[in-house]
Parts: sequence; structure tokens; C-alpha cells
Amino acid sequence: MRISKLLGIQHPIIQAGMVWCSGWELASASANAGLLGVIGSGSMYPEILNEHIVKCKVATEKPFAVNVPLLYPEIERHFEVILSNRVKTVITSAGNPAKYTELLKKEGVTVIHVVSSSKFALKAQDAGVDAVIAEGFEAGGHNGREETTTLCLIPQVCRAIDIPVVAAGGISSGKSMYAAMALGADGVQIGSRFVASDESSAHPLFKQKVIDANEGDTVLTLKELAPVRLIKNGFYTAISEAYGRGALAKELKELLGRGRAKKGMFEGDMINGELEIGQVSACIQDIKPVAEIVKEIIMEYEETRKLMYSRSMSV
Amino acid sequence: MRISKLLGIQHPIIQAGMVWCSGWELASASANAGLLGVIGSGSMYPEILNEHIVKCKVATEKPFAVNVPLLYPEIERHFEVILSNRVKTVITSAGNPAKYTELLKKEGVTVIHVVSSSKFALKAQDAGVDAVIAEGFEAGGHNGREETTTLCLIPQVCRAIDIPVVAAGGISSGKSMYAAMALGADGVQIGSRFVASDESSAHPLFKQKVIDANEGDTVLTLKELAPVRLIKNGFYTAISEAYGRGALAKELKELLGRGRAKKGMFEGDMINGELEIGQVSACIQDIKPVAEIVKEIIMEYEETRKLMYSRSMSV
Repeated sequence: MRISKLLGIQHPIIQAGMVWCSGWELASASANAGLLGVIGSGSMYPEILNEHIVKCKVATEKPFAVNVPLLYPEIERHFEVILSNRVKTVITSAGNPAKYTELLKKEGVTVIHVVSSSKFALKAQDAGVDAVIAEGFEAGGHNGREETTTLCLIPQVCRAIDIPVVAAGGISSGKSMYAAMALGADGVQIGSRFVASDESSAHPLFKQKVIDANEGDTVLTLKELAPVRLIKNGFYTAISEAYGRGALAKELKELLGRGRAKKGMFEGDMINGELEIGQVSACIQDIKPVAEIVKEIIMEYEETRKLMYSRSMSV
Repeated sequence: MRISKLLGIQHPIIQAGMVWCSGWELASASANAGLLGVIGSGSMYPEILNEHIVKCKVATEKPFAVNVPLLYPEIERHFEVILSNRVKTVITSAGNPAKYTELLKKEGVTVIHVVSSSKFALKAQDAGVDAVIAEGFEAGGHNGREETTTLCLIPQVCRAIDIPVVAAGGISSGKSMYAAMALGADGVQIGSRFVASDESSAHPLFKQKVIDANEGDTVLTLKELAPVRLIKNGFYTAISEAYGRGALAKELKELLGRGRAKKGMFEGDMINGELEIGQVSACIQDIKPVAEIVKEIIMEYEETRKLMYSRSMSV
């Protein structure tokens, strides 16, 4: 797999960088399990990020990455921390990759950019990134406006660009990983499944909420600000009521306020917090160590591969 | 494949019944290509449906089905026409399968019901249907409220029920068919791809619109009435403006009016008509005969099967 070669990993799987859920413990456990472990810097001050990188290096000798949402206010300081620690791979999201890719590449960093359309995939390729993560409508957290699902997005992105494509959104198992790779992806990014792992820094109540979630329990909302997929709870009811009154972006922004995601995902307020997670939470049933999750995924992938080889069509 | 056995078809593919697009020409061409051809009765008066069934029987000796949206006002007369013509399979959608399944089964008809959640899949199984079509958020036309995508829906439905599951939404190619079957589906339903076929009764301008469509060009809207996925055009702009004014369901219903779908898909009014199609229209590039489309899908499925067998993961 060319993505495994590019990143120096055993399995073509990236553990998604997720605010409040993916610190050094999750990233190092993922790296040690043969994936690209990722520290999600979106919920970290630069000095906190530094601490997580340092601890991650102690916990694993394998490569790991940092995810950087390009909308973050202290972004320059984040990049300083990343470069001074010689992190090998950076995943950029939620912004224009043209601005930082050259700087990072000059320092020898591998750059992956997250996109939700083949148009932006092409822009990312033109900006010089090494690979893209193409994320469908079903993914948790911040998401694109086009609402293209992973099943429709991946073949289009693979047709549009030549660099490796990593599929994200709706993938939590060996079967769904196999399906995404059949669509043309070089690898997959898995997020929600790892929120419900022993090593994620999500609050125990949030982990429980994730494994309790059923179909229809998440929704893509706040499209006037930045579209985000979250679990419907008291906070979402307040958003719905605001929409019912015809609220404009300004009122929605005030309602969202600051620290909602921390309050929910990290501090465990299941009613008033923002609970970002993917639709695939409906398919997740248990909380377990990363190593076990990865083993299950790979085993199911292999079972699916063998089963599907027997399902020939008469031409 | 158990779905092929159940329906007496060569390939485990159902050509979707679609208003204004799937008359006897498309249904018989699909049946002759080894699929389950389907006449979409949602846009037909009972006497027109009768005519299409009679013509379809002349054009093919292979089995075909009729799709019946259960919200249709003259539904009893539709069932009379179907039973008197001894159609072997009926696909019910948009309603409660408990009401008609027993009647149809008593007459020896195979019944398939369309669902958008595993909850309704279970209800359909309890009602005695022979199989379900599980349709994801990306599908064209009328759709569920939960917005669950095909990638997240199929594994859940397969876990919930024991009868065959046909995946729908986002499938237009051999790759996407293969991916859906890897998720656990027994077969697939394909709609949008067949709108852009020689034999579909869609207006030529609508067929062209479908192959011109790109990512983000369709949207799931009118959720207050019955959620429907359509191409954004002048009619959709009018809907958006109504939403901007805080329009209630009553106003939206008046705006929709009667005959919008016919105006667009059958009469070719690309501005004011309702243009129902799936997200996968972005992946469809040409209009060709059904037989060629099917040949391409099966060939690509086989190529994907062989390619994927070589993509082993080290356990």
C-alpha cells in the first residue's frame, strides 16, 4: 500500500485527530498497534501540544502525526512546536493548504490535508500535499457543505487526483474499511471507533454515550457557522429552537459560545456539551483497548476479503 | 446469491422503480439484461400501469416487478392491476408494509419493502416481507428522516434482520456494488445510473442534467413534507427562499403544488420542475443502453473482486 510506505506504518489506517479525545495516550497506542497515531491539536494550547508530543515520543518509537485545524488562532506557534519536536507528519484541515504546505515540506514534513470534495482534493494536490483524507457526510465533527457521502465521494476523489487518498467517514470495522478500499482508497481514517477506546481522553460518560448511540442520533448542524456532526442532546434542542425562531448566524454563534466541546466530550456534560461523533457510532458497541480494536478490524478485513473473493458474478 | 434465487434473476441487481423514468421499456431492458426490472407505478394511473405491465410482458419473458409507493391514493386499484396481471414481485415503499403484505403473499407475490433504518427493516421483516431494500441518505427521490448513509446503514440492517438485504443509495458502478456487498448486502438496487440510459423515459434534457451533475449539486430537502433528494435548480431556489422567510409546511406544500416531478423529469422543464436524482449522479458520465451499463458494472465488479483479493493485510 503506497500510504503505508509514505507514512512508514504497518496497516493503512490513520487514527483520526479529534478534539478532546486524541492526546498522546491514544496516539501512541495507535502507533504501537501499527497505525498512524495522531495527536489532535485543535483542543490544545501550544505548550499542552508540546507536552503531548514529548510524552508520545516516550510512549512509542513508531511514527505519529499531529492534526492541525488551520482555523486555529495560535497556528504559527503550533507549527513551531511541531517543527522543533521533529514530528514527521502533519495533517491539516479546515482551511487552505496552500498557506503552510510549502513551509512544512521544506522542513521535510509529510503533509496530508483533509477535504470533503474532489474540487478541494485537486487544490490540495496542487498545493503540494503528499496525500489527502477525503471525508464523507457521515463523519463526526466538522464537515463539508456539499454533504457528499463517503460512498459517492471516494470514487470521485480517486478519479480527480493521483496522490494517495485516505477514506474517512462511516468506517469503524474491517468490513467498512474493505468497502472503502474497494472504492479506490489507499487507506482509511478511523475516528469514532477510537473515541470508544480505553486510551482516548474522552470523558467516560461520552464514551458510554457513543456506544449507546443508534441510527438517527447524530445530525449535521450549524451549517451557517461551520457544519458539525454531533449527538442530539439538550444543546442540540437549544439549536433547533433557535432555528425555529429563524435565528441568524450571530445568534447561533452566541448560543454555541466557547468551550462547548470541552464541556461535553472532556468534562462529561451530556446535556449542555457539544458531543461530536460520526453516524457510525450506531455500529460501535463496546469500549476496549486500541490494540484489540485494531486486531478485530484487520481480522474482519481479512475475513471479508476471503468471503468476497468467493462471490463472483457470472459475466 | 439468495436474492437472485428469490427473484429468479441472473445478477443480484434491482433496477429501481422511479417516477417518470421507469416504464416498460426500462423494466424490460433491465429484465433482459439479467436484473430485476421494475415498473415505477408512482407516476401512473391504474390503466396506464396496466398498459405498461402488458407491454413489459411482450418485451421480456424474464421476471419483472412493480414498485408501489403506499401513499398513492388509488393504491387498491394498483394492486388489482398487479394481481390480475400476475406480476410475480411487488416492491412497496413510503408506508406501512403491514397493511398489504399479507394480501400479496396470499396471492403468491414476492414482497420487498424499502426502508431507511434498521428499525423499519425489523418491522418489515415482522410484517412478512421476503426481503428489504435499505436505502441510504445519498439516494435520489424520497428518503428517510434519519439521514443514515448507505455505508452506515447496511451493516446495521444486516445485523438487525435475517431476510435478504438489498443496498440502495450511492451505487452506480461495479466498485460501489462490490463495496455494498462487502458491507453485507445480498444485492443492490441501482436507480440514478438507469435514469441516464437509452431506455429510461426521462426527458432527454433531464438525462443530460444527470450526467452533467457534480458533487454538491443535489440536496435532501422538504423534510417537513416528505424528505426528497433533487437537483438544485430554480424550483429549489424558490424552496430555499421560502425557508429563508420561515415558511411552514403548508406554504411549502403549496409551493410544491402538483405535477412538479412530471414537469421536470418527463416534460423537461429544468428550471421549474422537480428533478429527483441521487448524489451518485456526480459519478455518471454518459447515457447508454441498459445492456451496456450492466455489462460494465459486472465487469468492474469482477475486476474489483480480483484486485481486492490481492490487497491482503498482514494480521
